[in-house]
Amino acid sequence: MKTESYQVREGKKLNLKEHSTDGTKGVSKEEAAVRKPQLQLHLVKLQERLHAEEQQSLLVVLQTRDAGGKDGTIKHVFTGLNPQGVNVTGFKEPTPLELSHDFLWRVHAHTPAAGMIGVFNRSYYEDVLVTRVHGEINKQETQRRYDEIRAFEISLQNRGTRILKFHLNISKDEQKRRFQDRLDDPEKHWKFSQNDLNERALWNDYTRAYEETLSATSTATAPWYIIPADHKWFRNDLIMQILLETLNDMNPKFPKVDFDPSKIVIE
Amino acid sequence: MKTESYQVREGKKLNLKEHSTDGTKGVSKEEAAVRKPQLQLHLVKLQERLHAEEQQSLLVVLQTRDAGGKDGTIKHVFTGLNPQGVNVTGFKEPTPLELSHDFLWRVHAHTPAAGMIGVFNRSYYEDVLVTRVHGEINKQETQRRYDEIRAFEISLQNRGTRILKFHLNISKDEQKRRFQDRLDDPEKHWKFSQNDLNERALWNDYTRAYEETLSATSTATAPWYIIPADHKWFRNDLIMQILLETLNDMNPKFPKVDFDPSKIVIE
Repeated sequence: MKTESYQVREGKKLNLKEHSTDGTKGVSKEEAAVRKPQLQLHLVKLQERLHAEEQQSLLVVLQTRDAGGKDGTIKHVFTGLNPQGVNVTGFKEPTPLELSHDFLWRVHAHTPAAGMIGVFNRSYYEDVLVTRVHGEINKQETQRRYDEIRAFEISLQNRGTRILKFHLNISKDEQKRRFQDRLDDPEKHWKFSQNDLNERALWNDYTRAYEETLSATSTATAPWYIIPADHKWFRNDLIMQILLETLNDMNPKFPKVDFDPSKIVIE
Repeated sequence: MKTESYQVREGKKLNLKEHSTDGTKGVSKEEAAVRKPQLQLHLVKLQERLHAEEQQSLLVVLQTRDAGGKDGTIKHVFTGLNPQGVNVTGFKEPTPLELSHDFLWRVHAHTPAAGMIGVFNRSYYEDVLVTRVHGEINKQETQRRYDEIRAFEISLQNRGTRILKFHLNISKDEQKRRFQDRLDDPEKHWKFSQNDLNERALWNDYTRAYEETLSATSTATAPWYIIPADHKWFRNDLIMQILLETLNDMNPKFPKVDFDPSKIVIE
């Protein structure tokens, strides 16, 4: 599958309306179900090498609107991997201590160490999205933060971290269906927050903020992908493909040793 | 299955020789393979509730000799769980910064938050095992640390953390087989460390240190389990059973909400 077509091109003006929320690229749900265990097997093998090699790391940033599928993506895409090599960090509303630092301070502490896959459930991108939509930062400060984010990501890359950023693109109707599902299913009530409806009312403002942010911060080496995310199975399938391509490209290797194993005698 | 029989009784003098390394409690490898997916399914459901509830947490401490199976246990027991709710921390030789603090400082930072399962690959118990065997601490300091560990664990329990401690009990012959396997398989060379042979020479000293430590720090609410660990499949099966019993006993529940979901209308 060609996954580059889902990348946001560096500096290209973005119109989210032109990006599908329910596309499936000719893949059927059955095909995706069949290849899921194969994809997972490949991912597990590459992860094992990445962890053993301890030279590179992978950072996966997940951003989307409420009910956009961050939790579901983590559950379905990363559950097959060895949790010893995966570190998931969720970023909620900053605490007073976190707010007393620059916005990258709290995320920097959780970037993946060599050998690790780090997953950010929300991220430093909230600080140019929510804050921008709610008028907490102006255009000038937003631009400054874009620059800081680009510099931050370059710094991570210079030490062996690959960065993948996924915007899970859902439609307004799909968000409604998912909210309704949370209201209808007693086991999902706790996932619903009244505040989600206030944010939903700002749908178009978020669209603009995402368009500007994705365009300003997608680079050839730390690209944003816009993932059609109305169909959960396609979202998972596509993200697993991209992860697999990326890990294959990173090509981690089991470390070589500096002794001759055949010469060692165990008493 | 009765799992209490694997617990170390509080204050009871311990003789590791009386504890099996290769027992399988009448379970066959095939039986264990059949029930693994069932156990996993139950664990996943309970983990989901634990994470949603966000009131309790579970700390799993893994200790053993070199090649005792800590990594394998994590890989096989925890891989089916949602990594968003699992935090694995490996404790290697302390850094100078860590050594400039008390021995619980670095581990405290990684104890599981409410809703999480924390797994310690080695732990603060190294500080009464390795250090004791190598004569870095004397008997008096060892006793003081036992007291500190008990107080630390009580403090975690008072805020809703359940603690399970597993000593993976392998035989000296099995360790030899596993070392040899690492030397024979090029993909495992990197797992072998020459220092492992020096530690192996101290086998009996470690036995005594484990006996004393497990006896001094196993309590009714934070018990040590001695897991027969020569057979990896039995080790995994038994640990999954104990996890399941424990999570069932914790009985996490989806949170109740303080609004009437039927009254909410999504625009």
